[in-house]
Amino acid sequence: MNDPHDLTIAYIGGGSRGWATTLMKDLAMDPDLSGTVRLHDIDREAAAMNASIGNDLSARPDVVGRWRYEAVDDLRGALAGADFVVLSILPGTFAEMASDVHAPEAFGLYQSVGDTAGPGGTMRAFRTVPMYRVFAEAIRDVCPGAWVINYTNPMAACVRTLYEVFPGIRAFGCCHEVFGTQHLLSFVLKDATGLWPAHRDDIEVNVLGVNHFTWIDRASYKGIDLMPLYDAFAKAHAETGYERTELGYDPTGYFSSSERVKIDLYLRYGAIAAAGDRHLAEFCPSPWYLRDPSVVAAWKFALTPVSWRVRKEAELRDRQRRWFERQEAVPLAASGEEGVRQLKALCGLGPLTTNVNLPNRGQVEGLPLGAVVETNCRMARDSARPVAAGRLPVAVEPLVSRHAAQQEGIVRAALTGDRGLAFAVFLNDPQLAGLGLADARALFDRMAAATAPYLPF
Amino acid sequence: MNDPHDLTIAYIGGGSRGWATTLMKDLAMDPDLSGTVRLHDIDREAAAMNASIGNDLSARPDVVGRWRYEAVDDLRGALAGADFVVLSILPGTFAEMASDVHAPEAFGLYQSVGDTAGPGGTMRAFRTVPMYRVFAEAIRDVCPGAWVINYTNPMAACVRTLYEVFPGIRAFGCCHEVFGTQHLLSFVLKDATGLWPAHRDDIEVNVLGVNHFTWIDRASYKGIDLMPLYDAFAKAHAETGYERTELGYDPTGYFSSSERVKIDLYLRYGAIAAAGDRHLAEFCPSPWYLRDPSVVAAWKFALTPVSWRVRKEAELRDRQRRWFERQEAVPLAASGEEGVRQLKALCGLGPLTTNVNLPNRGQVEGLPLGAVVETNCRMARDSARPVAAGRLPVAVEPLVSRHAAQQEGIVRAALTGDRGLAFAVFLNDPQLAGLGLADARALFDRMAAATAPYLPF
Amino acid sequence: MNDPHDLTIAYIGGGSRGWATTLMKDLAMDPDLSGTVRLHDIDREAAAMNASIGNDLSARPDVVGRWRYEAVDDLRGALAGADFVVLSILPGTFAEMASDVHAPEAFGLYQSVGDTAGPGGTMRAFRTVPMYRVFAEAIRDVCPGAWVINYTNPMAACVRTLYEVFPGIRAFGCCHEVFGTQHLLSFVLKDATGLWPAHRDDIEVNVLGVNHFTWIDRASYKGIDLMPLYDAFAKAHAETGYERTELGYDPTGYFSSSERVKIDLYLRYGAIAAAGDRHLAEFCPSPWYLRDPSVVAAWKFALTPVSWRVRKEAELRDRQRRWFERQEAVPLAASGEEGVRQLKALCGLGPLTTNVNLPNRGQVEGLPLGAVVETNCRMARDSARPVAAGRLPVAVEPLVSRHAAQQEGIVRAALTGDRGLAFAVFLNDPQLAGLGLADARALFDRMAAATAPYLPF
Amino acid sequence: MNDPHDLTIAYIGGGSRGWATTLMKDLAMDPDLSGTVRLHDIDREAAAMNASIGNDLSARPDVVGRWRYEAVDDLRGALAGADFVVLSILPGTFAEMASDVHAPEAFGLYQSVGDTAGPGGTMRAFRTVPMYRVFAEAIRDVCPGAWVINYTNPMAACVRTLYEVFPGIRAFGCCHEVFGTQHLLSFVLKDATGLWPAHRDDIEVNVLGVNHFTWIDRASYKGIDLMPLYDAFAKAHAETGYERTELGYDPTGYFSSSERVKIDLYLRYGAIAAAGDRHLAEFCPSPWYLRDPSVVAAWKFALTPVSWRVRKEAELRDRQRRWFERQEAVPLAASGEEGVRQLKALCGLGPLTTNVNLPNRGQVEGLPLGAVVETNCRMARDSARPVAAGRLPVAVEPLVSRHAAQQEGIVRAALTGDRGLAFAVFLNDPQLAGLGLADARALFDRMAAATAPYLPF
Repeated sequence: MNDPHDLTIAYIGGGSRGWATTLMKDLAMDPDLSGTVRLHDIDREAAAMNASIGNDLSARPDVVGRWRYEAVDDLRGALAGADFVVLSILPGTFAEMASDVHAPEAFGLYQSVGDTAGPGGTMRAFRTVPMYRVFAEAIRDVCPGAWVINYTNPMAACVRTLYEVFPGIRAFGCCHEVFGTQHLLSFVLKDATGLWPAHRDDIEVNVLGVNHFTWIDRASYKGIDLMPLYDAFAKAHAETGYERTELGYDPTGYFSSSERVKIDLYLRYGAIAAAGDRHLAEFCPSPWYLRDPSVVAAWKFALTPVSWRVRKEAELRDRQRRWFERQEAVPLAASGEEGVRQLKALCGLGPLTTNVNLPNRGQVEGLPLGAVVETNCRMARDSARPVAAGRLPVAVEPLVSRHAAQQEGIVRAALTGDRGLAFAVFLNDPQLAGLGLADARALFDRMAAATAPYLPF
Repeated sequence: MNDPHDLTIAYIGGGSRGWATTLMKDLAMDPDLSGTVRLHDIDREAAAMNASIGNDLSARPDVVGRWRYEAVDDLRGALAGADFVVLSILPGTFAEMASDVHAPEAFGLYQSVGDTAGPGGTMRAFRTVPMYRVFAEAIRDVCPGAWVINYTNPMAACVRTLYEVFPGIRAFGCCHEVFGTQHLLSFVLKDATGLWPAHRDDIEVNVLGVNHFTWIDRASYKGIDLMPLYDAFAKAHAETGYERTELGYDPTGYFSSSERVKIDLYLRYGAIAAAGDRHLAEFCPSPWYLRDPSVVAAWKFALTPVSWRVRKEAELRDRQRRWFERQEAVPLAASGEEGVRQLKALCGLGPLTTNVNLPNRGQVEGLPLGAVVETNCRMARDSARPVAAGRLPVAVEPLVSRHAAQQEGIVRAALTGDRGLAFAVFLNDPQLAGLGLADARALFDRMAAATAPYLPF
Repeated sequence: MNDPHDLTIAYIGGGSRGWATTLMKDLAMDPDLSGTVRLHDIDREAAAMNASIGNDLSARPDVVGRWRYEAVDDLRGALAGADFVVLSILPGTFAEMASDVHAPEAFGLYQSVGDTAGPGGTMRAFRTVPMYRVFAEAIRDVCPGAWVINYTNPMAACVRTLYEVFPGIRAFGCCHEVFGTQHLLSFVLKDATGLWPAHRDDIEVNVLGVNHFTWIDRASYKGIDLMPLYDAFAKAHAETGYERTELGYDPTGYFSSSERVKIDLYLRYGAIAAAGDRHLAEFCPSPWYLRDPSVVAAWKFALTPVSWRVRKEAELRDRQRRWFERQEAVPLAASGEEGVRQLKALCGLGPLTTNVNLPNRGQVEGLPLGAVVETNCRMARDSARPVAAGRLPVAVEPLVSRHAAQQEGIVRAALTGDRGLAFAVFLNDPQLAGLGLADARALFDRMAAATAPYLPF
Repeated sequence: MNDPHDLTIAYIGGGSRGWATTLMKDLAMDPDLSGTVRLHDIDREAAAMNASIGNDLSARPDVVGRWRYEAVDDLRGALAGADFVVLSILPGTFAEMASDVHAPEAFGLYQSVGDTAGPGGTMRAFRTVPMYRVFAEAIRDVCPGAWVINYTNPMAACVRTLYEVFPGIRAFGCCHEVFGTQHLLSFVLKDATGLWPAHRDDIEVNVLGVNHFTWIDRASYKGIDLMPLYDAFAKAHAETGYERTELGYDPTGYFSSSERVKIDLYLRYGAIAAAGDRHLAEFCPSPWYLRDPSVVAAWKFALTPVSWRVRKEAELRDRQRRWFERQEAVPLAASGEEGVRQLKALCGLGPLTTNVNLPNRGQVEGLPLGAVVETNCRMARDSARPVAAGRLPVAVEPLVSRHAAQQEGIVRAALTGDRGLAFAVFLNDPQLAGLGLADARALFDRMAAATAPYLPF
């Protein structure tokens, strides 16, 4: 680990208009770190624009974190000797994502996100794993000691691939869904006690499960046990749901939610499902929350169409161009993301306990060793060690263990290019459980055809 | 372990007209063991009749295994000081079984057996676990060193309860479904090579999974690898199925099967599912093989109605009476069951390697420690040690791990009498995956009401 | 967990003139906790004096932590309903300790402490385990949800017994030896960089091993890797040792050390042994550091005779009396111990990461599951979760694993009262490795005779 | 796996005058296998002579197993496409072995064998591991699917290296020491009951531990529990020992033993140490059985000097030449070794349960995963699966776990060539426990110098 003021960060997917911008802003606002960020992207122009935007930002007098940004066309050139590697890519294009999310609708399967589990998440994994093989091999060869932080979904398959291909890698995956649940807990606390605002760091939770289907079995705020408060909250809002904002639930919003899925799972399982309802629903059998759009609406969450993502991306592209052409200045505001805090902890600038995704070495009992699981982790200088989280609640474990076990099949099918195995794995997803075998195969074939250029089989 | 000629066997469920008769006949035909069999049953009259039948049998000149049979009304009296305990009961009556099997039909869920997984198997488990708590406590108190052999279904929940309540117990569970698959393999061998008949002991298989959803990933006969033969067999018979007998598949038969489910699973997963199709289908999502009676017929297996069991039981009852009244002699013929061979192995009369159900101490990698799993086991004098079976094929593991994980919830819900937990566990079964939440709850409530006297909640 | 201002602490060994006083002072100086401390001791008068001293202290105007102290004669009365239990006893008297420490000298075995490993520590364990059985049974019956903090040595055997007897206990063991090593690291840092004083909380270490034979394989201070600094330090001071104080090494001091053992172990194993030299030496073969008093002197540490402890205790007894008789006021000063911080963390008043002793559930790979190991632990409200520490350095593991494996034998021999087993276990200790079998048995018999009233065999 | 009549066996160390001859004879006497044996040896002439001898043998009319023998100079040529690989080499020459066994005598350390544990075994391991790296890499490249059977000592380090270098290897290690203990048990049986001769296959034992320090915790012969018989035997012969032959104990014999070490260990630990006394003594602290030659004589076993091995080898060399020159015919007699039975089992010609050395995947609880352990194993066609052996007796585990933990250090030091690590590992051996640090280092340096050409550091 180098001097915190002479770091090299390789950002793969560095043309991104979302996460890359977030990181640039967060770096700009922190005086404790500086160095070089190498932006690599298959969209070279976007990476170059981000580099220019980043360097402009770094030159501003209101910026305290000084970084040099470079666009680097060559993957290995970007990675060589890096201290940190950030992986944050879109695997394929929105065309493939449209297939992931919408092709299953013809078979009566609706997906709210389609990037993690379900038919969409599974097909996305099949095309992502080969890309991650390339990353892992390059990291092994040119920066084996780097800390590698993954943001790409499907999280578990990405991290699993990194370790499968390069067992010595120092990689973990980060996701903010648990933060959102901690935020919800702060509202629960407020409503029950008037205490407000609770900082997320003070909402102590025990986290265990797999990414986007993570569970909290204990939560407290300082001396206060939040579990009974959450229990009362869940009972009070079971029918109507709960909105954190004055806007309330917006049936036309694509990210809107009233936490009804989360509450429903709590009432049945006695533990808090710690992700957004759109994600949680996708890990369950389809009939529960995703039977059709009217059921989704009744549960007060939303299906996010890819068309929305396309429009959103166009807006971001315009914004990027305005920043690049200096028509507009990048606004500085804390993102609430944790990437920079993690970099600092790994540089030794104060320990941090947070939730991350790592291969299971026992931190979640009852799930297979080697499966990528999400738990708390103690980060300190050059060190990220999982905190023993115990075992999932007894009725939750079967819901999660099948997803944990899917990882191995997904990665194996994609690394070997075995189409028959890929179908068997695809079919095992709980969202498929309502389809007959012929329909499932027809759906698989259709989705595979639509995304064929990216598939290894 | 006593002298093989002075054994005490306690048979719980000893009034049985099926398994108890089988054991009596097998004991009668083996000269190497003798002693006392104590028959205990809540149907005292049936136990007394079996004792009389057994003693009559023992007195016959053509019988070489001499045993004294006693009907013992008191459970602990029957168990006290026993060398072996056989557990083989019907948990509840056919009325409860009718609810298990047929109540779900109103919700579009068809079950071929209904005693292991699915809504029927789960409810059956809830009422069986409390009975097994009583057995385990009694064994702990009055015959802690006995070898306990379970035949009751649901196998895994029964064995799991025994170990949960009395961790020092020496119990395992036996099931002949794998034998049937070995028998099928002998036909596969015959068709491919002309070799016939292969003895089951020579069909070497590696067994791993949970009872009734056990898998074989390697099989051989002497020097011959059976896996490629099975592969060719599966491809040849995928569409039409395969009948072992000249009778062929009988669409009116309640136990008939053409192995089409088994073959279909093989073609997708590359491993041999080692149970009858009626059992296998129940571990999968309902739409695959059990969507409705016509789908079952297309897969050429059968739904066994409880009415059939009632008729069958009446016949057995008549036969028992005829034997008891000495109108008819018990016919002697080897059953093909393995109980007596196991007793002999445990007495030290020659080691035996066979498949049994035991808590996982690592014999199946990837499944939770403590879950009851089925693998091969080396039995010798006073010793039953699992053989390391490795890990399930990668696409099979998620299908099995969820069932393995269910065990803990089933046992916990039943031992604590927590109805909310019981519903959460019930809902997790893959057969339920096609139901919406409201329907699932309605079904649970209806089945619970129908079997209420036997339920702990 | 109750209100932090209405806690009940049961202190077993509450007549103590050392640790009990420390706790009373630390509680007095902290405004965030209050409640009742029940002092239980077989020396009832000492407990009563401490109660009086504690109440006097609580009444002082300069004291911010208000506690009510009660001497409670009955163990179960003291424990009933407690939130926290502190276990800190002297198992037996100094007469037994004299046997532990000095009897082996007749056989050429010198011990620097004699309370953890070696012949002394092993015999001490044999008499402590039965006492801990009584504690565990009482806790199970009257305060099963309490957090139990053990300070008594031998630490591992004490904690292991608690979990063996009451598997549901929430107990951990605390020891300040790692703190001492962190303190040494602050000197290493100062000498290398001039930074001073480093707070212990900023000396981040990864801790793994068994109590008093704990190892640190990574250490950092903020952004600085301390391992290369320690390497240079070790090489510089290998011959002469290192003294932290101006006094330097005092060859007449009974606790004096120049860290030469610690340095020597580092130079061979590449990891930092994290306890005082007096403890470390006792885990190694005797010839290394304890061959005879001249070897001890050459390594610049000390043998602590029990006669010194007797004199020291007399001084403490006098001091206690003066305090009790109000001839003197208890002086307030932070102890540097961590008990009160732990209580606060468990009450939810801010998380704490520190090193504790817990049964191994995977936090130290390569050591047996269930063995009590020392690692970092994340403490928060009602929660103490080990941090995954990985695996010991490859050449250290054999040194530690044998001690970890001894625990099971020690506890089993003491709980069953099996003298033959006790001798076999005793003989396995590495300090005994230089003795012939006859001598070892003679030593065992002599020590057993000298402490017979306290032994279970 | 090929046709049992068209096998290719690669024998590395094929010039051997002991094991190679044994294998040739056993193959000659078995009609069920045939094919080609490729003999590779760095002593090319010896391999060529053995090939000639083997082919002569194969041509004899009294021989039923027909094999073609070839001497192959090139390691990879010998291995290419082999079905089976036998590894049986002398690592270095008798000069190195003389250093291993006798150099420590100058420091008061006597070794009875010097090839497994202790200073000799450890140094031997350091020079063997690099050779095994070469073998593993070649097997990985040219016959990855072969079954690899190791006979070379130190067994555990050899097998561990094979798996470390090529994790996919199908290797196990075989040793006949447990057979010897089964043979002893047949005498115990005879003396107690008159039953004679018991076949080894009928002496059922549960085996667990590390090679040459393996333990038996259960033993039976048909219906008879052998443990109480052994207990009586041990008590009866504790003082005088026991000789199986009419010759009795021969104080001048180099392999003679009266089982006194084995009996002494049993009396203390309650389990049967299942290797010859010469091996067992070396795993214990030196003062127990190896303090000096008079102690060895008192325990009635023997130190085997390397000079004896040199003389013995000369005799074998002469015999080989006579056979090669057809002055003498190879006499046929069953060896009692099990290699050919294992080949047959792996070919599918009937399953076999026997003891072998394999990496721990849970078959011995309490020892580290990955360490090479010895347990029973079920062998069948293309399959060798360990039988779960449970946990070592509580007082035995610390004796064994340290040796299990040493493996990792031995292999690491040798593969990395880290001399410092090598010394640290060397020092951890229990035979060294009586030496001071300076003496231990002097011994290490002297032994390293004497064997330097073969060492990786």
